[in-house]
Amino acid sequence: MNPVLLRQKLSEFLTEDLGFGDLSAQCLPTTTVSGQLVAKSAGVVAGQAIPPVIYSLLGDADYQPLVADGTAVTAGTAIGRVTGESRTILAGERVSLNLMQRLSGIATATAQAIATLGDDTIQIVDTRKTMPGLRLFDKYAVTVGGGQNHRLGLDHGIMLKDNHIAAAGGVAQAITQAKRLAGPMMRIEIETETQAQVRAAVAAGADVIMFDNQTPATIRHWQQLVPAHILTEASGGITLANLASYAGCGVTFISLGYLTNAVAPLDISFVLEGAVKA
Amino acid sequence: MNPVLLRQKLSEFLTEDLGFGDLSAQCLPTTTVSGQLVAKSAGVVAGQAIPPVIYSLLGDADYQPLVADGTAVTAGTAIGRVTGESRTILAGERVSLNLMQRLSGIATATAQAIATLGDDTIQIVDTRKTMPGLRLFDKYAVTVGGGQNHRLGLDHGIMLKDNHIAAAGGVAQAITQAKRLAGPMMRIEIETETQAQVRAAVAAGADVIMFDNQTPATIRHWQQLVPAHILTEASGGITLANLASYAGCGVTFISLGYLTNAVAPLDISFVLEGAVKA
Amino acid sequence: MNPVLLRQKLSEFLTEDLGFGDLSAQCLPTTTVSGQLVAKSAGVVAGQAIPPVIYSLLGDADYQPLVADGTAVTAGTAIGRVTGESRTILAGERVSLNLMQRLSGIATATAQAIATLGDDTIQIVDTRKTMPGLRLFDKYAVTVGGGQNHRLGLDHGIMLKDNHIAAAGGVAQAITQAKRLAGPMMRIEIETETQAQVRAAVAAGADVIMFDNQTPATIRHWQQLVPAHILTEASGGITLANLASYAGCGVTFISLGYLTNAVAPLDISFVLEGAVKA
Amino acid sequence: MNPVLLRQKLSEFLTEDLGFGDLSAQCLPTTTVSGQLVAKSAGVVAGQAIPPVIYSLLGDADYQPLVADGTAVTAGTAIGRVTGESRTILAGERVSLNLMQRLSGIATATAQAIATLGDDTIQIVDTRKTMPGLRLFDKYAVTVGGGQNHRLGLDHGIMLKDNHIAAAGGVAQAITQAKRLAGPMMRIEIETETQAQVRAAVAAGADVIMFDNQTPATIRHWQQLVPAHILTEASGGITLANLASYAGCGVTFISLGYLTNAVAPLDISFVLEGAVKA
Amino acid sequence: MNPVLLRQKLSEFLTEDLGFGDLSAQCLPTTTVSGQLVAKSAGVVAGQAIPPVIYSLLGDADYQPLVADGTAVTAGTAIGRVTGESRTILAGERVSLNLMQRLSGIATATAQAIATLGDDTIQIVDTRKTMPGLRLFDKYAVTVGGGQNHRLGLDHGIMLKDNHIAAAGGVAQAITQAKRLAGPMMRIEIETETQAQVRAAVAAGADVIMFDNQTPATIRHWQQLVPAHILTEASGGITLANLASYAGCGVTFISLGYLTNAVAPLDISFVLEGAVKA
Amino acid sequence: MNPVLLRQKLSEFLTEDLGFGDLSAQCLPTTTVSGQLVAKSAGVVAGQAIPPVIYSLLGDADYQPLVADGTAVTAGTAIGRVTGESRTILAGERVSLNLMQRLSGIATATAQAIATLGDDTIQIVDTRKTMPGLRLFDKYAVTVGGGQNHRLGLDHGIMLKDNHIAAAGGVAQAITQAKRLAGPMMRIEIETETQAQVRAAVAAGADVIMFDNQTPATIRHWQQLVPAHILTEASGGITLANLASYAGCGVTFISLGYLTNAVAPLDISFVLEGAVKA
Repeated sequence: MNPVLLRQKLSEFLTEDLGFGDLSAQCLPTTTVSGQLVAKSAGVVAGQAIPPVIYSLLGDADYQPLVADGTAVTAGTAIGRVTGESRTILAGERVSLNLMQRLSGIATATAQAIATLGDDTIQIVDTRKTMPGLRLFDKYAVTVGGGQNHRLGLDHGIMLKDNHIAAAGGVAQAITQAKRLAGPMMRIEIETETQAQVRAAVAAGADVIMFDNQTPATIRHWQQLVPAHILTEASGGITLANLASYAGCGVTFISLGYLTNAVAPLDISFVLEGAVKA
Repeated sequence: MNPVLLRQKLSEFLTEDLGFGDLSAQCLPTTTVSGQLVAKSAGVVAGQAIPPVIYSLLGDADYQPLVADGTAVTAGTAIGRVTGESRTILAGERVSLNLMQRLSGIATATAQAIATLGDDTIQIVDTRKTMPGLRLFDKYAVTVGGGQNHRLGLDHGIMLKDNHIAAAGGVAQAITQAKRLAGPMMRIEIETETQAQVRAAVAAGADVIMFDNQTPATIRHWQQLVPAHILTEASGGITLANLASYAGCGVTFISLGYLTNAVAPLDISFVLEGAVKA
Repeated sequence: MNPVLLRQKLSEFLTEDLGFGDLSAQCLPTTTVSGQLVAKSAGVVAGQAIPPVIYSLLGDADYQPLVADGTAVTAGTAIGRVTGESRTILAGERVSLNLMQRLSGIATATAQAIATLGDDTIQIVDTRKTMPGLRLFDKYAVTVGGGQNHRLGLDHGIMLKDNHIAAAGGVAQAITQAKRLAGPMMRIEIETETQAQVRAAVAAGADVIMFDNQTPATIRHWQQLVPAHILTEASGGITLANLASYAGCGVTFISLGYLTNAVAPLDISFVLEGAVKA
Repeated sequence: MNPVLLRQKLSEFLTEDLGFGDLSAQCLPTTTVSGQLVAKSAGVVAGQAIPPVIYSLLGDADYQPLVADGTAVTAGTAIGRVTGESRTILAGERVSLNLMQRLSGIATATAQAIATLGDDTIQIVDTRKTMPGLRLFDKYAVTVGGGQNHRLGLDHGIMLKDNHIAAAGGVAQAITQAKRLAGPMMRIEIETETQAQVRAAVAAGADVIMFDNQTPATIRHWQQLVPAHILTEASGGITLANLASYAGCGVTFISLGYLTNAVAPLDISFVLEGAVKA
Repeated sequence: MNPVLLRQKLSEFLTEDLGFGDLSAQCLPTTTVSGQLVAKSAGVVAGQAIPPVIYSLLGDADYQPLVADGTAVTAGTAIGRVTGESRTILAGERVSLNLMQRLSGIATATAQAIATLGDDTIQIVDTRKTMPGLRLFDKYAVTVGGGQNHRLGLDHGIMLKDNHIAAAGGVAQAITQAKRLAGPMMRIEIETETQAQVRAAVAAGADVIMFDNQTPATIRHWQQLVPAHILTEASGGITLANLASYAGCGVTFISLGYLTNAVAPLDISFVLEGAVKA
Repeated sequence: MNPVLLRQKLSEFLTEDLGFGDLSAQCLPTTTVSGQLVAKSAGVVAGQAIPPVIYSLLGDADYQPLVADGTAVTAGTAIGRVTGESRTILAGERVSLNLMQRLSGIATATAQAIATLGDDTIQIVDTRKTMPGLRLFDKYAVTVGGGQNHRLGLDHGIMLKDNHIAAAGGVAQAITQAKRLAGPMMRIEIETETQAQVRAAVAAGADVIMFDNQTPATIRHWQQLVPAHILTEASGGITLANLASYAGCGVTFISLGYLTNAVAPLDISFVLEGAVKA
């Protein structure tokens, strides 16, 4: 994660929570204490770069990760340790937890999807269904879980959907038009819903062909129409429940909106070591 | 929602998604089209103030809500209609949906909690477990669903937890200390875990007493110790599954972290009316 | 004060004054020098957290406070010492002084009000008549002087004034309506101008009752109508000249707009130790 | 005032006060109402450009100034009228008043200084003792009152003080050095405390010579040493009490720190026309 | 160009130039006037979306483009017309011109490069050698001139250079490693300096192969080694002087750093229609 | 350069280039390496304060300048050395180079103009034709090359052009009007195109008289009309080709728009010491 953007985001988040300052913390003595972030259920940890920046911004506490991002931990595992001024530690606790829980939840779901699919010739990828303001984090968490990122934003590739195709007058025309805009680092992906569209997309030189809302059987069939150097993606209606049925279907990528759109946070708690004494 | 902050947040979110601009949209003709936001499952709508600002920022499209925030809709209900330049409409679609889905999901969960509890003498309230950067939205959505907001941030009240109590030397001392900081509009809430603490909190003049991680039976009992003008809150380990058992327990508030921490988005789609034609 | 917000505010203030850079400072040699902030009249010091951040932002000078915030100093007292590169010290001087003078002026006025009132059962509180952009600082300075803060902003409590009461149809209705919005940490205050309104406010369960523009005698009378658990506030037309007459009137709070609205800055100078030599 | 910067500043100030939104305003009905800003004491009005931007940012209210900036009004004069949604009008009231009161206070003090001096061959000017974050406003208000602005910031001119002179090895050397930095639009001012320094400053070609902390009599004498094309400034220890004694002393400018440093706000109230009815 | 980012950038640029306001403009009467932007030499116009936003931000002037972006104009052509308050028009003139001149200069250079190359099977593309803070504009201007954009930023594609190859242990290993990071919309480009590297890049499945600092003859030869579905780019040491020699060399793209790195601005003047009269 | 503004600008520029992070850098091992910035052609170095801030923002690399700003270097000179984490060094390379090349190009052009003019009684100055967003840098680079800065912005002086003169009713009236706005540190410059205007400007007490678009011979003649304490400036149509002909013409300043408007960047490369090995 870009460290400059990370720092800016965390500054903004801290001020959202702290406002003019943590009033409750002023009821604490100024003592040095330690505490741990502890996973309360099993999952994949993501976001260890976050607490160090939070405590550097607040000023007099330090965080040491105890496991690396991407580690699968069991319930009860201490994942990081913070030492410093008690007021500071408590002031930064909630923002740290809120983010670590979300990111670890996303990484866990991604790892789970990969395991469920059980086909390492297919990459699990995310979508643009991330939380506004948190895309930096959401996209990162998917990679920690073993997935890859689809477009980071609307200027990171050209995606031609039904409306673009209709407006252009067909698959071939839409791709031709898009190629005028796409430079060396910009791929063109097109959604297809019929075999004819798949053939047209291949003929027109699409970089990525998406099979939209198709069954594994159909996808296996359509995949035969696509030469090896054109990537393919299965998308639409794929959930943890039916993901395994896509194993062996031959696509390059399966995209899963739920990874970032319906996140079950990993339960992580902050446990002070010994109560704070005056 | 503060309209100045709303506009600033949405500007930031749009640029996160658009970057230098929506490349795919440039493959569309410049035509005026219309489309609808349609709820794909039943729920409570929240966030109707968002798309109008998004389209005002992007410049040449308008959004009209078809139902008010707080309306419980059935699957298939059109909740809003946007008309304008096709490129603009598609460029603003994802940010609108990502937010509307989250907010409506929160409102729906809140309404569901209220219905499940079935005790209108108890208010459902949220926590600070909101998504960093989105607290403005998350807190609003809870009120749309019929809940109330707990602290908006760390400077919106004093919350004395176990560490504060230990550091101060007891419940009475902690409250006395907090009263020196609390002005006319600032309440002091204290977490209690024993009957003795409840009695001490009452004696010391706490404004709100939280019964932390207690069963409905215990709460019913402790509630007897608290005079009418002191508010009480049940918190900790309360889920949709056990919420109904808290009916009649007598507290003023029940706080539910999952309302904003583990959000199931309401499924809302954007449907263009007719394909975009050149 | 929230350290993240403090740093952001001071960055903004420094660039307001420095623009592209301090031209005059370029006429100085690059030498290490020391200097002191000296109070030129007696008062209460506030803002010692500010110069360290200013010099940390500018880069090569350090500030050490010589007295703690809240200390009452006599004229001639050195309150802090800065050592570092002469160009840096002079570049940060004006912003440091402008803020320290204002904050110390507010703290001094607050302490003076408390002494003048001479009734420690009544808390002196501020208002929202702070300088736009400086509320973080103004509110903090009041607490340094021994006062408490009224609302930090419009989302920190509900204040029902004449217009709200008229619109709602009466005191009782206004309070009932407000209670639907107010969660556990949100107090409701209502302005009263008649005895009938005071009675209605008590009956409806207001959290704080303000006696608006009333004489001490009237307040003493009305205070009898209010049970102990409801807070009261005297407000309107109270100045240093008449403040002492409110002693013993029985209210919980007296609010004073002039504390932050008409600030007499404490005279503080910066004195370099020895002229800067080439 | 730069309209882009004005809008940005007012956005920031509104969010400082509103936070997530004005809770009390939600207890009002959504009705269109009108109100007036009324001067409660006599003074010079400044800041009429502010409320229109505030209400444009908040969205559904309009402000019409009834007198122009710079108008001297008597107590009771309505200076502006706002019409719109009652919730919006009340939400924007405090920021409007806080700023209008300060700016009008500065303009009033400036006009008073000019009248007290009674010498229109001498310009009254301000200093850099403005409130951090508010310099745009403070400097503008001085011009509304009939004064002129000294440096807007540290990059708006070169000011050589005792330390610069000592470091450079004398007045002549300091000015010579400064001339290497100063382009066509950049004046060099030098502080003088002796007649010898004045002569040296003239000889070295200073643009402005400041007579620092000198009596009117001394200034009248030193002024004889300065040719007509070199500007002069009296500064230091000049207050409303002794200002008249400087009439006829011959300087081009008198600078007064108190204009912006110790502001007595002009008392301005907001009066709704008729109570807000449901 | 993303309209939200465009507006934010132009706000920042206006305040950089205006500071607290345009002092000279205050010497003008408040009159409505008109003026034109006129090209003083031949070139391709780019940036017509800029002046309308500038004048919308300043408030009371309007800009109408007279030719579309991408139009090749001759010296003397009026390219746009602005009408409004004279003070506003002059205040916005310099920022408008500075940007229009740069963007039109880039578009002109791009069009000239395309014409000089004379091979429409090869696309002219830019690099990341843009002016910091102006990439939105520089990249846009290249497309107006007929070119395409290479990476918009470091997260818009993977570019493997000599250091990456050495670190990975060879071309094949570097590409394999990169493929683990690259999702559906992310291309991998690799720099090659030998025929062996080209063969290895083809074998490893690079998306784009760059021939770094090679003569047209060598490129023609190496191009034979690359199958049709892999893109190629010539880069390094290509200037307007030698560009024509690359015609027919077979690559997909030629990248030219000078397009945005050494910009000759198109000479554009602002001409008021008639002097401003009081 | 103001260090606070410098840090803010460089943060913004880094995030423009890095986006969510440098993907290619992730293909590098985490090793400590060193590299040098090397001038590829002769010129004057400017901007050595930039890379240290860039690497401080990115976090784990340090930059040491090897020559001071203002040094004239020959082709092949190493001007700075960076040591640190290889990923960080490459991530910050492009922004460092883009800025250093531009600033050094401006400094080089300024030094060249001074040498070409060969008259050290005349100062070379810049204009407001700087790149939007980069004025801090562009103005600084001119001073590094030995020039002086004209106005830093529209609030740094009053410049009366033909339209101001026409509107005011003549040179004398325009200057009189401007004097009402200009405080002690604000000069008034007026453009003149006839001898009569020059005489009028002298009589009215202009601070600076610009001879607009005049030949050296005319300027020499007009200069006789201006007393020594009034500064003069030659402007308009002066290029490197005709600059030498202005030697001895007697003006105080010659302004050159091309210094910042048509910048030939100094060619500077980054050379890693040894390839990065795994």
